[in-house]
This record gives sequence, structure tokens and C-alpha cells, in this order.
Amino acid sequence: MSTSHNEAPTRTVDVDGTAFAYRELGTGSGVPVILLHHFTAVLDDWDPAVVDGLAAERRVILVDLRGVGATGGSTPDSVEAMAADAVAFVRALGLATVDLLGFSLGGMVAQAFVRQEPDLVRRLILAGTSPAGDAGPANAFPVLQEAIEKATGAGKHPKHFLFFSPTETSQAAADAFLGRLEQRTADRDPAATNETIGAQVTALAKWERSSTPAGLANVSQPVLVVNGDNDVMIPTISSFTLARALPNARLSIYPDSGHGALFQHHELFVRQALDFLRD
Amino acid sequence: MSTSHNEAPTRTVDVDGTAFAYRELGTGSGVPVILLHHFTAVLDDWDPAVVDGLAAERRVILVDLRGVGATGGSTPDSVEAMAADAVAFVRALGLATVDLLGFSLGGMVAQAFVRQEPDLVRRLILAGTSPAGDAGPANAFPVLQEAIEKATGAGKHPKHFLFFSPTETSQAAADAFLGRLEQRTADRDPAATNETIGAQVTALAKWERSSTPAGLANVSQPVLVVNGDNDVMIPTISSFTLARALPNARLSIYPDSGHGALFQHHELFVRQALDFLRD
Repeated sequence: MSTSHNEAPTRTVDVDGTAFAYRELGTGSGVPVILLHHFTAVLDDWDPAVVDGLAAERRVILVDLRGVGATGGSTPDSVEAMAADAVAFVRALGLATVDLLGFSLGGMVAQAFVRQEPDLVRRLILAGTSPAGDAGPANAFPVLQEAIEKATGAGKHPKHFLFFSPTETSQAAADAFLGRLEQRTADRDPAATNETIGAQVTALAKWERSSTPAGLANVSQPVLVVNGDNDVMIPTISSFTLARALPNARLSIYPDSGHGALFQHHELFVRQALDFLRD
Repeated sequence: MSTSHNEAPTRTVDVDGTAFAYRELGTGSGVPVILLHHFTAVLDDWDPAVVDGLAAERRVILVDLRGVGATGGSTPDSVEAMAADAVAFVRALGLATVDLLGFSLGGMVAQAFVRQEPDLVRRLILAGTSPAGDAGPANAFPVLQEAIEKATGAGKHPKHFLFFSPTETSQAAADAFLGRLEQRTADRDPAATNETIGAQVTALAKWERSSTPAGLANVSQPVLVVNGDNDVMIPTISSFTLARALPNARLSIYPDSGHGALFQHHELFVRQALDFLRD
């Protein structure tokens, strides 16, 4: 294997009659890491610095869940259904054990995944996410709309406001991150549709309204919980709450950063993630 | 230099007429790390696994502050005065720049140190500690008394209850930690006196009553904040609050552990600390 994030071909695998798009790269005979994407994201929204960093030691698999990017079907409107799709995707690839890196909505999907199929999961990295029932995710749509308005006025990308802090250093990191997302030129993934975004918004709102912290105390897997210290999408305190609710979680909060802390501090994040995943 | 924690000789340096006891070990031409001790601690309360781990890459200096262990004088009853002593000690050694690792009370001393002499400090590691004004430290004495009673009843060391979680894994880590503290046989440091402990209790209570978060927003140095997820001495949430108040702090919370998380998870802590201190 090996290759790089910007050159890995988009492949498909049949998942119960639907073609799921994914890319695979990296090295090593260890357990592969499955990357579960954020709200509105497709394969090209993963930071090449993070993907290539992880791929230096691990086999890395990025996937578009149902209805997302080049994957067929309609996006379901619950985290649980998304997790069932992710499980089916992992099985379709014939994998017996995986690590999961879930970012934001993907972190919720990862939590539901490990509850549904604990034996499939070795370790989890949960970035910029929250346990079910915590306030925050239901605001994703108004927060997104406000960011789009601000971004249009300022001639910037909404992610400047959604994923980064207002500080000069964090905004410069946003520019660098957005530049990296443009590096891949061939075989780019279609953007998320409004239908998909609508279903994801519903799933996020249901996650927040869910009253169960949903068995986190039974997750025996080691977990690394990560966020920036100033997340306006999923409040940073939710990462603290999430780590406390898990019996075996390390928490890492990064300075001067927001929801996209793993991208802003990609070198530190990759070092900590590889350290955590190392056998 | 080099040598090991268990073999480093205890030296003294004159600090304005008082002999301060310290030990030095380690390697490298980088900025030395000064270790600032916890409530009731003397030189022999530092975990050899942590000290030797840091000393693999850094020059490490452990010190008994005024009135503590083999150091002369009477322990002052405020964190600010302890910090002034620590500053004077660093100057007496002729050091122009240092890194600080402060644990618990030592973490408060480190915060006061960097406010008093910001130009002396390059980076800070604050373990199991709190910002001024946060609830918790004033209970140190009743918490200590209760732990002594429980320990006497259970035939255990109070640190089993003060520094570790009640889980089987954390209690086993307590045994291992306490075993490491006994490894040094020659030239052991005198235990803290009741007079010293009394002054430290007063200092902790004043720290909690202090209303100022005391200029943390002006600390421009990089900081690594560390604690266990279940600290009964300085509540874990204070580490979260502390990291948020600092403009450039990484936060690391470790699973299944208490106040002494840096000792329980000494391998992980040393990796993260060396990564953080690396130039």
C-alpha cells in the first residue's frame, strides 16, 4: 500500500447493494484506522497532513457514509443508522478489527459503532465531539448558517469561523488547512448535497435530545478524546464530559484552537494519535 | 552529569543565607527543568520513574523549598513567598532560563513563579493543580486526615487514597509507585515537619480564597496541564479551568487515575512531557 492522501484512488465496495466510496493508504500490518467524517464533509475534507501523518505508521481508510460524496443511497437521519452503515462497510471490507477516528458527527458515529459492535473495535479516537444528551450539536445548522454569512461578508471560507479560533495564529492555521484541502486535484469527491446535510442536521439534533449517555461506561476500549480549547460547534466541555464518562479515556485539549484542533495542531495530534494507537 | 534519581547526591546552595537542598541529574544542553514539590513532600517523594524519564533528555533539578526536608529556614505560609524562594534558588544556581514542573502545591508555586519572573521561565508543566480561587486546595488538611485514618484501618499508605483511584488497576499502580519511592537507600531526605505542613495548609487555603485568577491570561509561555480523571485532592475540573485560562496550554487528562496520575501513567507522562519540552 502506502501512496498519499492526495493520490489515493477512490474505490468502491458493495455494502448490501449500495456502492460505498472509500480511499485507502498507509503502511504496517497493524489494525487499520477507519476515519469517520464530520457534518457536511466528504473524503476531500480530511486534512492531508493528518491522513498522511497517520499513514506513516498505520493503514488508513477514509469512507463516505451512505448518501455522502460519491457513496450511493440516502443519508439516514440518525447516528445509530449511520453507525450501522459504518459497521456494514467494515464488514464488507472483510476486516475483523479496526480502530476508529471519528471527528465531530463522525465521533458520535464512532460511539454508536462501538456500542453496536464492541468486538470489531480495538481503540477509538474521538475528536471535537460530544456524548449523547450534551447540549451543542442541535445548533449545528444555525451555527453553520451564521458562519456562512460571516464568511461571505469577510470573503473567507466558513471553516475559518467553524473550525478555528478568532486569533491571528488560529486564522493563519485556517488558511494553511484550507490550502492543504485544495492540494488534491484529480478524482475529487462530490460535495455533500442539501438532502444529506438535512438528514445530518436531524441526526445531530436527535443525538443532543437523546437522554441516554448510552453505555459509555461499558466501553472498555482505550479512547483518546481530543478537541481545541475554544470549540464553537461542540462545546469543549463536552470533550471533558465524554472522557470522564469513559472508563479508559485519555483527554487532550489543544491551545488557541477550535473544533478543527486536530487539523490546526496536526503535528501534535498525529504524534499523540500514533502514540495512542501504537501496539 | 547524568546519574539516576536514586543515586544523585543531595547538594546545597546558599540562598540569601539559607542552605537549600537540591539534587541534580540528567543530560543535554537544553534548558533545565526545576521540579517543584507537592504538599508534605520532600526530595524522596518524586517518582524515580518520572525523574529518570525526564533526565533521559533534560537536565533535571529537584529542590526542597524553604523549611522542607533538608533545606533550612521555616516554610512560609503563602504560595507567593514560596515562589519568591524558588526564584531565589534558581538565581543562586546561576540559571538564566528554566522550565518548571510543579505538582499540586508545586504547580501553584510555578504559577506564582512565572508571574513574578516571567523572563526566567521558558515552559511550564502543571500537574494536579488549580488556578488561584478554585475550590479544593483548602480541604487538603481534612482530606489528608481522612486518608491517614482510612490508610491506618486498611494497612495501607495514605497515598493509596490521596493520589490514586479506588479501582484495582490504580491501586496496583499505587503499590508500584510506593515501591519505587523506597528504592533510594542512601542519603534520604528528612520528612516534612508538622510546622512545615501547617504552613503549607495555610498557603493552600489562601490560594483557594484568593479571588484573582492572577494574570494567567498574561502567561505567554507554553504550558502543559496534566491530571488524572478522578482527583480527590484538587478536583480534575480545575485542570480544565486552568488550561482554559492560559492562552497557550495543552491539557492532558489520564484515565483511571487520581492526583498522582503523572506517577501512575509515568511512561505516558514522560513521553508527553519530553515532547512538550523538546526544542
